[in-house]
Amino acid sequence: MQKVKCIITYDGSGFAGFQIQPKQRTVQGELEKALTKMHKGSYVRVHPSGRTDTGVHAINQTIHFETLYDIPVSNWKRAINTLLPGDLYVKEVKLAHASFHARYDVVEKEYRYYIWNEKEADVFKRNYFYQFPYSLNVEAIQEACKQLEGKHDFTTFSSAKATTKGSKERTLYQVTCEKRGSELELIFRGSGFLYNMVRIIVGVLLDIGQERREPAEIAMLLDSKDRRLVGETVPPQGLYLWDVKYED
Amino acid sequence: MQKVKCIITYDGSGFAGFQIQPKQRTVQGELEKALTKMHKGSYVRVHPSGRTDTGVHAINQTIHFETLYDIPVSNWKRAINTLLPGDLYVKEVKLAHASFHARYDVVEKEYRYYIWNEKEADVFKRNYFYQFPYSLNVEAIQEACKQLEGKHDFTTFSSAKATTKGSKERTLYQVTCEKRGSELELIFRGSGFLYNMVRIIVGVLLDIGQERREPAEIAMLLDSKDRRLVGETVPPQGLYLWDVKYED
Repeated sequence: MQKVKCIITYDGSGFAGFQIQPKQRTVQGELEKALTKMHKGSYVRVHPSGRTDTGVHAINQTIHFETLYDIPVSNWKRAINTLLPGDLYVKEVKLAHASFHARYDVVEKEYRYYIWNEKEADVFKRNYFYQFPYSLNVEAIQEACKQLEGKHDFTTFSSAKATTKGSKERTLYQVTCEKRGSELELIFRGSGFLYNMVRIIVGVLLDIGQERREPAEIAMLLDSKDRRLVGETVPPQGLYLWDVKYED
Repeated sequence: MQKVKCIITYDGSGFAGFQIQPKQRTVQGELEKALTKMHKGSYVRVHPSGRTDTGVHAINQTIHFETLYDIPVSNWKRAINTLLPGDLYVKEVKLAHASFHARYDVVEKEYRYYIWNEKEADVFKRNYFYQFPYSLNVEAIQEACKQLEGKHDFTTFSSAKATTKGSKERTLYQVTCEKRGSELELIFRGSGFLYNMVRIIVGVLLDIGQERREPAEIAMLLDSKDRRLVGETVPPQGLYLWDVKYED
Protein backbone atom coordinates (compact mmCIF):
# COMPACT_ATOMS: atom_id res chain seq x y z
CA MET A 1 0.00 0.00 0.00
CA GLN A 2 1.41 3.41 -1.01
CA LYS A 3 0.23 6.70 0.44
CA VAL A 4 0.00 9.52 -2.12
CA LYS A 5 -0.11 13.19 -1.11
CA CYS A 6 -1.47 15.75 -3.58
CA ILE A 7 -1.64 19.52 -3.58
CA ILE A 8 -4.82 20.54 -5.37
CA THR A 9 -6.49 23.81 -6.37
CA TYR A 10 -10.15 24.45 -7.12
CA ASP A 11 -12.51 27.21 -8.08
CA GLY A 12 -15.21 26.74 -5.43
CA SER A 13 -17.96 28.46 -7.49
CA GLY A 14 -19.26 25.28 -9.04
CA PHE A 15 -18.94 22.97 -6.03
CA ALA A 16 -21.26 22.29 -3.10
CA GLY A 17 -18.12 22.33 -0.94
CA PHE A 18 -15.39 19.75 -0.46
CA GLN A 19 -17.22 16.93 1.29
CA ILE A 20 -19.03 14.29 -0.71
CA GLN A 21 -22.83 14.53 -0.62
CA PRO A 22 -25.51 12.63 -2.49
CA LYS A 23 -26.70 14.32 -5.71
CA GLN A 24 -24.33 17.28 -5.24
CA ARG A 25 -21.22 18.18 -7.19
CA THR A 26 -18.40 18.21 -4.63
CA VAL A 27 -14.59 18.33 -4.78
CA GLN A 28 -14.28 15.02 -2.95
CA GLY A 29 -16.88 13.49 -5.26
CA GLU A 30 -14.99 14.54 -8.42
CA LEU A 31 -11.61 13.42 -7.02
CA GLU A 32 -12.90 10.02 -5.89
CA LYS A 33 -14.70 9.50 -9.20
CA ALA A 34 -11.44 10.14 -11.09
CA LEU A 35 -9.28 8.00 -8.78
CA THR A 36 -11.80 5.16 -8.67
CA LYS A 37 -11.87 5.17 -12.48
CA MET A 38 -8.05 5.01 -12.54
CA HIS A 39 -8.29 2.05 -10.16
CA LYS A 40 -10.68 0.20 -12.48
CA GLY A 41 -13.70 0.73 -10.28
CA SER A 42 -12.24 -0.12 -6.90
CA TYR A 43 -13.22 2.71 -4.54
CA VAL A 44 -10.47 5.15 -3.54
CA ARG A 45 -11.16 7.33 -0.52
CA VAL A 46 -9.73 10.86 -0.43
CA HIS A 47 -8.74 12.57 2.86
CA PRO A 48 -8.36 16.38 2.84
CA SER A 49 -6.51 18.67 5.27
CA GLY A 50 -9.99 19.90 6.11
CA ARG A 51 -13.31 20.58 4.42
CA THR A 52 -14.22 23.79 2.67
CA ASP A 53 -17.78 25.11 2.35
CA THR A 54 -19.85 25.73 -0.78
CA GLY A 55 -18.28 28.55 -2.84
CA VAL A 56 -14.97 28.58 -0.93
CA HIS A 57 -11.87 28.33 -3.14
CA ALA A 58 -8.53 26.58 -2.65
CA ILE A 59 -5.14 27.64 -3.95
CA ASN A 60 -3.21 24.88 -2.16
CA GLN A 61 -5.40 22.27 -0.50
CA THR A 62 -3.72 19.01 0.50
CA ILE A 63 -5.29 15.56 0.24
CA HIS A 64 -4.02 12.01 0.56
CA PHE A 65 -5.20 8.62 -0.63
CA GLU A 66 -3.91 5.06 -0.61
CA THR A 67 -3.16 2.93 -3.65
CA LEU A 68 -1.75 -0.44 -4.62
CA TYR A 69 -0.44 1.04 -7.88
CA ASP A 70 3.25 1.69 -8.34
CA ILE A 71 3.31 4.64 -10.75
CA PRO A 72 5.93 7.44 -11.03
CA VAL A 73 4.60 10.66 -9.45
CA SER A 74 4.71 12.68 -12.68
CA ASN A 75 2.47 10.11 -14.34
CA TRP A 76 0.03 10.25 -11.42
CA LYS A 77 -0.35 13.98 -11.91
CA ARG A 78 -1.06 13.75 -15.62
CA ALA A 79 -3.34 10.73 -15.25
CA ILE A 80 -5.52 12.31 -12.55
CA ASN A 81 -5.74 15.71 -14.24
CA THR A 82 -6.90 14.10 -17.48
CA LEU A 83 -9.92 12.77 -15.59
CA LEU A 84 -10.72 15.94 -13.61
CA PRO A 85 -13.04 18.80 -14.66
CA GLY A 86 -11.59 22.24 -15.52
CA ASP A 87 -12.36 23.78 -12.13
CA LEU A 88 -10.30 21.23 -10.18
CA TYR A 89 -6.58 20.65 -10.76
CA VAL A 90 -3.79 18.64 -9.16
CA LYS A 91 -0.68 20.86 -8.88
CA GLU A 92 1.70 18.41 -7.23
CA VAL A 93 1.85 14.69 -6.41
CA LYS A 94 4.29 13.22 -3.88
CA LEU A 95 4.70 9.80 -2.33
CA ALA A 96 4.14 10.06 1.43
CA HIS A 97 5.21 8.02 4.44
CA ALA A 98 2.74 5.32 5.54
CA SER A 99 2.01 7.31 8.71
CA PHE A 100 1.15 10.57 6.90
CA HIS A 101 -2.38 11.94 7.31
CA ALA A 102 -3.52 15.08 5.46
CA ARG A 103 -5.79 16.14 8.32
CA TYR A 104 -4.06 15.06 11.52
CA ASP A 105 -0.54 16.14 10.55
CA VAL A 106 -1.31 19.78 9.66
CA VAL A 107 0.95 22.19 11.55
CA GLU A 108 -0.17 25.43 9.95
CA LYS A 109 -2.91 26.70 7.67
CA GLU A 110 -3.31 29.93 5.76
CA TYR A 111 -6.63 31.42 4.66
CA ARG A 112 -7.11 34.62 2.71
CA TYR A 113 -10.25 36.68 2.35
CA TYR A 114 -10.72 39.13 -0.54
CA ILE A 115 -13.07 42.10 -0.48
CA TRP A 116 -13.94 44.30 -3.45
CA ASN A 117 -14.61 47.64 -1.78
CA GLU A 118 -16.67 49.37 -4.46
CA LYS A 119 -20.26 50.53 -4.86
CA GLU A 120 -20.54 49.23 -8.41
CA ALA A 121 -20.83 45.51 -9.07
CA ASP A 122 -18.15 43.80 -11.16
CA VAL A 123 -19.54 40.72 -12.90
CA PHE A 124 -16.05 39.19 -13.13
CA LYS A 125 -15.51 39.41 -9.37
CA ARG A 126 -18.89 38.15 -8.15
CA ASN A 127 -17.66 34.59 -7.47
CA TYR A 128 -14.18 35.58 -6.27
CA PHE A 129 -14.59 38.60 -3.98
CA TYR A 130 -17.09 39.81 -1.40
CA GLN A 131 -18.33 43.12 -2.76
CA PHE A 132 -18.60 45.59 0.11
CA PRO A 133 -19.94 49.04 -0.86
CA TYR A 134 -19.29 51.07 2.32
CA SER A 135 -16.09 52.99 3.02
CA LEU A 136 -13.68 51.41 5.47
CA ASN A 137 -11.18 52.66 8.02
CA VAL A 138 -8.31 50.34 7.11
CA GLU A 139 -6.08 51.49 10.01
CA ALA A 140 -8.78 50.49 12.51
CA ILE A 141 -9.02 47.04 10.86
CA GLN A 142 -5.23 46.67 11.02
CA GLU A 143 -5.24 47.56 14.74
CA ALA A 144 -7.90 44.90 15.38
CA CYS A 145 -5.91 42.35 13.33
CA LYS A 146 -2.92 42.78 15.65
CA GLN A 147 -5.07 41.95 18.66
CA LEU A 148 -6.22 38.72 17.08
CA GLU A 149 -2.67 37.44 16.68
CA GLY A 150 -1.37 35.02 19.30
CA LYS A 151 -2.90 32.19 21.30
CA HIS A 152 -6.57 32.70 22.19
CA ASP A 153 -9.75 30.78 22.86
CA PHE A 154 -11.78 31.56 19.71
CA THR A 155 -15.20 30.32 20.95
CA THR A 156 -16.70 33.77 20.26
CA PHE A 157 -15.60 33.48 16.63
CA SER A 158 -16.80 29.97 15.87
CA SER A 159 -20.08 28.85 14.39
CA ALA A 160 -22.85 27.67 16.70
CA LYS A 161 -23.12 24.76 14.27
CA ALA A 162 -19.54 23.69 15.13
CA THR A 163 -19.35 20.10 16.25
CA THR A 164 -15.72 20.30 17.41
CA LYS A 165 -15.33 18.99 20.91
CA GLY A 166 -12.34 19.84 23.03
CA SER A 167 -10.33 23.00 23.12
CA LYS A 168 -11.29 26.07 21.11
CA GLU A 169 -7.82 27.43 21.68
CA ARG A 170 -5.87 28.24 18.52
CA THR A 171 -2.77 30.27 17.72
CA LEU A 172 -2.88 32.85 14.94
CA TYR A 173 0.66 33.57 13.70
CA GLN A 174 -0.39 36.28 11.29
CA VAL A 175 -3.52 38.39 10.87
CA THR A 176 -2.98 41.23 8.42
CA CYS A 177 -5.01 43.51 6.18
CA GLU A 178 -3.77 45.35 3.13
CA LYS A 179 -5.60 47.62 0.74
CA ARG A 180 -4.50 47.86 -2.90
CA GLY A 181 -6.79 50.08 -4.89
CA SER A 182 -10.33 48.82 -4.31
CA GLU A 183 -9.13 45.40 -3.20
CA LEU A 184 -8.81 44.46 0.47
CA GLU A 185 -6.69 41.40 1.26
CA LEU A 186 -6.95 39.75 4.68
CA ILE A 187 -4.39 37.07 5.57
CA PHE A 188 -4.90 34.57 8.41
CA ARG A 189 -2.11 32.16 9.26
CA GLY A 190 -2.55 29.88 12.25
CA SER A 191 -2.17 26.51 13.93
CA GLY A 192 -5.77 25.68 13.07
CA PHE A 193 -9.17 27.24 12.53
CA LEU A 194 -12.62 26.55 14.00
CA TYR A 195 -15.66 26.13 11.77
CA ASN A 196 -16.52 29.46 10.06
CA MET A 197 -13.87 31.21 12.18
CA VAL A 198 -12.32 33.28 9.37
CA ARG A 199 -15.70 34.36 7.99
CA ILE A 200 -16.96 35.36 11.46
CA ILE A 201 -13.75 37.30 12.21
CA VAL A 202 -13.96 39.14 8.86
CA GLY A 203 -17.55 40.16 9.74
CA VAL A 204 -16.32 41.74 12.98
CA LEU A 205 -13.37 43.38 11.19
CA LEU A 206 -15.81 44.98 8.73
CA ASP A 207 -17.90 46.30 11.66
CA ILE A 208 -14.68 47.83 13.01
CA GLY A 209 -13.79 49.20 9.56
CA GLN A 210 -17.17 50.92 9.48
CA GLU A 211 -16.49 52.30 12.98
CA ARG A 212 -19.51 50.52 14.42
CA ARG A 213 -17.12 48.85 16.88
CA GLU A 214 -13.72 49.78 18.34
CA PRO A 215 -10.55 47.76 17.61
CA ALA A 216 -10.09 47.54 21.40
CA GLU A 217 -13.29 45.46 21.68
CA ILE A 218 -11.48 42.40 20.30
CA ALA A 219 -10.02 41.50 23.69
CA MET A 220 -13.44 41.73 25.35
CA LEU A 221 -15.04 39.65 22.59
CA LEU A 222 -12.37 36.93 22.94
CA ASP A 223 -12.83 36.92 26.73
CA SER A 224 -16.63 36.72 26.56
CA LYS A 225 -16.68 33.34 24.73
CA ASP A 226 -20.16 34.40 23.65
CA ARG A 227 -21.04 33.83 20.01
CA ARG A 228 -24.14 36.00 20.29
CA LEU A 229 -21.96 39.11 20.57
CA VAL A 230 -20.68 38.88 17.01
CA GLY A 231 -22.59 39.65 13.85
CA GLU A 232 -22.88 38.16 10.43
CA THR A 233 -20.69 35.54 8.84
CA VAL A 234 -19.40 37.05 5.57
CA PRO A 235 -20.20 35.16 2.33
CA PRO A 236 -18.01 32.26 1.14
CA GLN A 237 -16.87 33.50 -2.29
CA GLY A 238 -14.17 35.81 -0.84
CA LEU A 239 -12.53 32.95 1.09
CA TYR A 240 -9.49 31.00 -0.13
CA LEU A 241 -7.71 28.10 1.55
CA TRP A 242 -4.30 29.43 0.58
CA ASP A 243 -1.82 26.96 2.05
CA VAL A 244 -1.46 23.97 4.34
CA LYS A 245 1.86 23.17 6.02
CA TYR A 246 3.17 19.89 7.42
CA GLU A 247 6.26 19.06 9.40
CA ASP A 248 9.52 18.49 7.44
CA MET B 1 -41.46 56.88 -27.46
CA GLN B 2 -38.09 57.32 -25.73
CA LYS B 3 -34.87 55.65 -26.85
CA VAL B 4 -32.70 54.41 -24.00
CA LYS B 5 -28.98 53.63 -24.44
CA CYS B 6 -27.24 51.37 -21.93
CA ILE B 7 -23.64 50.35 -21.39
CA ILE B 8 -23.63 46.79 -20.11
CA THR B 9 -20.99 44.30 -18.95
CA TYR B 10 -21.23 40.53 -18.81
CA ASP B 11 -19.22 37.48 -17.91
CA GLY B 12 -19.72 35.38 -21.03
CA SER B 13 -18.99 32.05 -19.32
CA GLY B 14 -22.60 31.28 -18.51
CA PHE B 15 -24.20 32.57 -21.72
CA ALA B 16 -24.76 30.93 -25.09
CA GLY B 17 -23.68 34.25 -26.60
CA PHE B 18 -25.56 37.53 -26.95
CA GLN B 19 -28.30 36.67 -29.41
CA ILE B 20 -31.58 35.23 -28.19
CA GLN B 21 -32.06 31.53 -28.94
CA PRO B 22 -34.76 29.08 -27.91
CA LYS B 23 -33.97 27.08 -24.75
CA GLN B 24 -30.58 28.76 -24.33
CA ARG B 25 -29.46 31.27 -21.72
CA THR B 26 -28.40 34.36 -23.67
CA VAL B 27 -27.57 37.99 -22.81
CA GLN B 28 -30.37 39.30 -25.02
CA GLY B 29 -32.77 36.81 -23.49
CA GLU B 30 -31.97 37.90 -19.91
CA LEU B 31 -32.12 41.61 -20.82
CA GLU B 32 -35.44 41.31 -22.66
CA LYS B 33 -36.92 39.21 -19.85
CA ALA B 34 -35.99 41.92 -17.30
CA LEU B 35 -37.20 44.82 -19.47
CA THR B 36 -40.41 43.06 -20.46
CA LYS B 37 -41.12 42.42 -16.76
CA MET B 38 -40.54 46.14 -16.03
CA HIS B 39 -43.01 46.92 -18.84
CA LYS B 40 -45.68 44.69 -17.29
CA GLY B 41 -45.36 41.98 -19.89
CA SER B 42 -45.27 44.08 -23.05
CA TYR B 43 -42.29 42.85 -25.10
CA VAL B 44 -39.21 45.11 -25.22
CA ARG B 45 -36.68 44.41 -27.93
CA VAL B 46 -33.00 45.00 -27.25
CA HIS B 47 -30.54 46.07 -30.00
CA PRO B 48 -26.81 45.56 -29.37
CA SER B 49 -23.78 47.19 -31.03
CA GLY B 50 -23.15 43.69 -32.33
CA ARG B 51 -23.45 40.09 -31.19
CA THR B 52 -20.87 38.22 -29.16
CA ASP B 53 -20.35 34.46 -29.33
CA THR B 54 -20.74 31.87 -26.58
CA GLY B 55 -18.12 32.42 -23.86
CA VAL B 56 -17.06 35.89 -25.10
CA HIS B 57 -17.11 38.59 -22.41
CA ALA B 58 -18.03 42.28 -22.52
CA ILE B 59 -16.58 45.10 -20.47
CA ASN B 60 -18.52 47.84 -22.27
CA GLN B 61 -21.16 46.57 -24.66
CA THR B 62 -23.78 49.08 -25.83
CA ILE B 63 -27.45 48.32 -26.37
CA HIS B 64 -30.57 50.38 -26.99
CA PHE B 65 -34.30 49.84 -26.55
CA GLU B 66 -37.46 51.89 -26.85
CA THR B 67 -39.94 52.63 -24.08
CA LEU B 68 -43.08 54.63 -23.37
CA TYR B 69 -42.01 55.06 -19.75
CA ASP B 70 -40.74 58.38 -18.52
CA ILE B 71 -38.32 57.40 -15.73
CA PRO B 72 -35.17 59.26 -14.55
CA VAL B 73 -32.04 57.49 -15.86
CA SER B 74 -30.66 56.65 -12.40
CA ASN B 75 -33.89 54.83 -11.58
CA TRP B 76 -33.70 52.90 -14.86
CA LYS B 77 -30.27 51.61 -13.88
CA ARG B 78 -31.32 50.42 -10.43
CA ALA B 79 -34.60 48.97 -11.68
CA ILE B 80 -33.02 46.92 -14.48
CA ASN B 81 -30.11 45.68 -12.36
CA THR B 82 -32.48 44.43 -9.67
CA LEU B 83 -34.01 42.12 -12.28
CA LEU B 84 -30.75 40.94 -13.88
CA PRO B 85 -28.67 37.90 -12.86
CA GLY B 86 -25.23 38.39 -11.23
CA ASP B 87 -23.24 37.80 -14.44
CA LEU B 88 -24.93 40.65 -16.35
CA TYR B 89 -24.87 44.27 -15.17
CA VAL B 90 -25.95 47.66 -16.52
CA LYS B 91 -23.14 50.19 -15.87
CA GLU B 92 -24.74 53.27 -17.39
CA VAL B 93 -28.13 54.39 -18.72
CA LYS B 94 -28.60 57.45 -20.95
CA LEU B 95 -31.52 58.84 -22.88
CA ALA B 96 -30.70 58.81 -26.59
CA HIS B 97 -31.88 60.75 -29.63
CA ALA B 98 -34.75 59.13 -31.56
CA SER B 99 -32.39 58.48 -34.48
CA PHE B 100 -29.76 56.63 -32.39
CA HIS B 101 -29.06 53.00 -33.26
CA ALA B 102 -26.61 50.91 -31.19
CA ARG B 103 -25.50 48.93 -34.23
CA TYR B 104 -25.61 51.30 -37.19
CA ASP B 105 -24.06 54.29 -35.42
CA VAL B 106 -20.88 52.60 -34.17
CA VAL B 107 -17.76 54.52 -35.22
CA GLU B 108 -15.15 52.45 -33.38
CA LYS B 109 -14.90 49.19 -31.49
CA GLU B 110 -12.22 47.80 -29.23
CA TYR B 111 -11.65 44.12 -28.55
CA ARG B 112 -9.01 42.63 -26.29
CA TYR B 113 -7.72 39.09 -26.19
CA TYR B 114 -6.00 37.65 -23.11
CA ILE B 115 -3.59 34.74 -23.17
CA TRP B 116 -2.21 32.94 -20.13
CA ASN B 117 1.19 31.79 -21.36
CA GLU B 118 1.94 29.00 -18.89
CA LYS B 119 2.28 25.23 -19.01
CA GLU B 120 0.29 24.71 -15.81
CA ALA B 121 -3.46 25.19 -15.78
CA ASP B 122 -4.95 27.82 -13.48
CA VAL B 123 -8.52 26.92 -12.52
CA PHE B 124 -9.36 30.59 -11.87
CA LYS B 125 -8.33 31.62 -15.38
CA ARG B 126 -9.99 28.84 -17.40
CA ASN B 127 -13.02 30.96 -18.35
CA TYR B 128 -11.16 34.26 -18.73
CA PHE B 129 -7.92 33.51 -20.60
CA TYR B 130 -6.77 31.22 -23.38
CA GLN B 131 -4.08 29.09 -21.78
CA PHE B 132 -1.23 28.71 -24.25
CA PRO B 133 1.65 26.49 -23.05
CA TYR B 134 4.34 27.12 -25.70
CA SER B 135 6.95 29.87 -25.51
CA LEU B 136 6.36 32.92 -27.68
CA ASN B 137 8.54 35.43 -29.51
CA VAL B 138 6.69 38.59 -28.44
CA GLU B 139 8.77 40.91 -30.66
CA ALA B 140 7.75 38.89 -33.73
CA ILE B 141 4.07 39.19 -32.69
CA GLN B 142 4.49 42.96 -32.21
CA GLU B 143 6.05 43.29 -35.67
CA ALA B 144 3.09 41.44 -37.19
CA CYS B 145 0.65 43.62 -35.21
CA LYS B 146 2.08 46.75 -36.85
CA GLN B 147 1.42 45.32 -40.29
CA LEU B 148 -2.23 44.70 -39.46
CA GLU B 149 -2.83 48.35 -38.59
CA GLY B 150 -4.42 50.54 -41.26
CA LYS B 151 -7.06 50.02 -43.92
CA HIS B 152 -7.14 46.50 -45.39
CA ASP B 153 -9.49 43.97 -46.92
CA PHE B 154 -9.73 41.37 -44.11
CA THR B 155 -11.36 38.55 -46.13
CA THR B 156 -8.46 36.22 -45.22
CA PHE B 157 -9.19 36.79 -41.54
CA SER B 158 -12.95 36.32 -41.56
CA SER B 159 -14.95 33.20 -40.89
CA ALA B 160 -16.22 31.15 -43.82
CA LYS B 161 -19.54 31.18 -41.95
CA ALA B 162 -19.69 34.97 -42.27
CA THR B 163 -22.90 36.16 -43.87
CA THR B 164 -21.77 39.76 -44.30
CA LYS B 165 -22.29 40.95 -47.81
CA GLY B 166 -20.50 43.95 -49.17
CA SER B 167 -17.05 45.20 -48.41
CA LYS B 168 -14.64 43.29 -46.20
CA GLU B 169 -12.54 46.41 -45.91
CA ARG B 170 -11.97 47.61 -42.34
CA THR B 171 -9.54 50.04 -40.71
CA LEU B 172 -7.61 48.94 -37.64
CA TYR B 173 -6.46 51.99 -35.67
CA GLN B 174 -4.49 50.02 -33.10
CA VAL B 175 -3.16 46.46 -32.98
CA THR B 176 -0.78 45.97 -30.05
CA CYS B 177 0.60 43.16 -27.94
CA GLU B 178 2.05 43.49 -24.46
CA LYS B 179 3.41 40.85 -22.13
CA ARG B 180 3.17 41.31 -18.36
CA GLY B 181 4.50 38.29 -16.51
CA SER B 182 2.70 35.27 -17.93
CA GLU B 183 -0.15 37.38 -19.30
CA LEU B 184 -0.31 38.44 -22.94
CA GLU B 185 -2.68 41.29 -23.78
CA LEU B 186 -3.68 41.92 -27.39
CA ILE B 187 -5.60 45.12 -28.18
CA PHE B 188 -7.57 45.63 -31.40
CA ARG B 189 -9.19 48.99 -32.07
CA GLY B 190 -10.92 49.51 -35.39
CA SER B 191 -13.76 50.89 -37.48
CA GLY B 192 -15.43 47.50 -37.42
CA PHE B 193 -14.70 43.79 -37.31
CA LEU B 194 -15.76 40.86 -39.47
CA TYR B 195 -17.20 37.68 -37.95
CA ASN B 196 -14.48 35.86 -35.92
CA MET B 197 -11.88 38.32 -37.24
CA VAL B 198 -10.09 38.92 -33.92
CA ARG B 199 -9.97 35.22 -33.04
CA ILE B 200 -8.61 34.30 -36.49
CA ILE B 201 -5.98 37.06 -36.34
CA VAL B 202 -4.87 35.94 -32.86
CA GLY B 203 -4.44 32.40 -34.21
CA VAL B 204 -2.07 33.70 -36.90
CA LEU B 205 -0.23 35.90 -34.36
CA LEU B 206 0.35 32.82 -32.20
CA ASP B 207 1.75 30.96 -35.24
CA ILE B 208 4.11 33.90 -35.72
CA GLY B 209 4.97 33.94 -32.00
CA GLN B 210 5.94 30.28 -32.29
CA GLU B 211 8.06 31.14 -35.35
CA ARG B 212 6.03 28.85 -37.57
CA ARG B 213 5.35 31.90 -39.77
CA GLU B 214 7.20 35.17 -40.42
CA PRO B 215 5.73 38.58 -39.44
CA ALA B 216 6.31 39.64 -43.07
CA GLU B 217 3.75 37.07 -44.24
CA ILE B 218 0.89 39.29 -43.00
CA ALA B 219 0.95 41.42 -46.17
CA MET B 220 0.81 38.31 -48.37
CA LEU B 221 -2.03 36.85 -46.30
CA LEU B 222 -4.05 40.06 -46.55
CA ASP B 223 -3.46 40.19 -50.33
CA SER B 224 -4.43 36.56 -50.89
CA LYS B 225 -8.03 36.99 -49.63
CA ASP B 226 -7.89 33.26 -49.06
CA ARG B 227 -9.29 32.00 -45.77
CA ARG B 228 -7.77 28.57 -46.28
CA LEU B 229 -4.28 29.99 -45.71
CA VAL B 230 -4.91 30.75 -42.05
CA GLY B 231 -5.15 28.25 -39.22
CA GLU B 232 -7.27 27.81 -36.17
CA THR B 233 -9.66 30.28 -34.62
CA VAL B 234 -8.57 30.68 -30.98
CA PRO B 235 -11.15 29.86 -28.26
CA PRO B 236 -13.74 32.44 -27.12
CA GLN B 237 -12.97 32.74 -23.39
CA GLY B 238 -9.93 35.02 -23.96
CA LEU B 239 -11.99 37.54 -25.96
CA TYR B 240 -13.50 40.73 -24.48
CA LEU B 241 -15.63 43.34 -26.23
CA TRP B 242 -13.85 46.19 -24.45
CA ASP B 243 -15.47 49.34 -25.79
CA VAL B 244 -17.85 50.72 -28.39
CA LYS B 245 -17.67 54.33 -29.53
CA TYR B 246 -20.31 56.55 -31.14
CA GLU B 247 -20.15 60.02 -32.61
CA ASP B 248 -20.79 63.02 -30.32
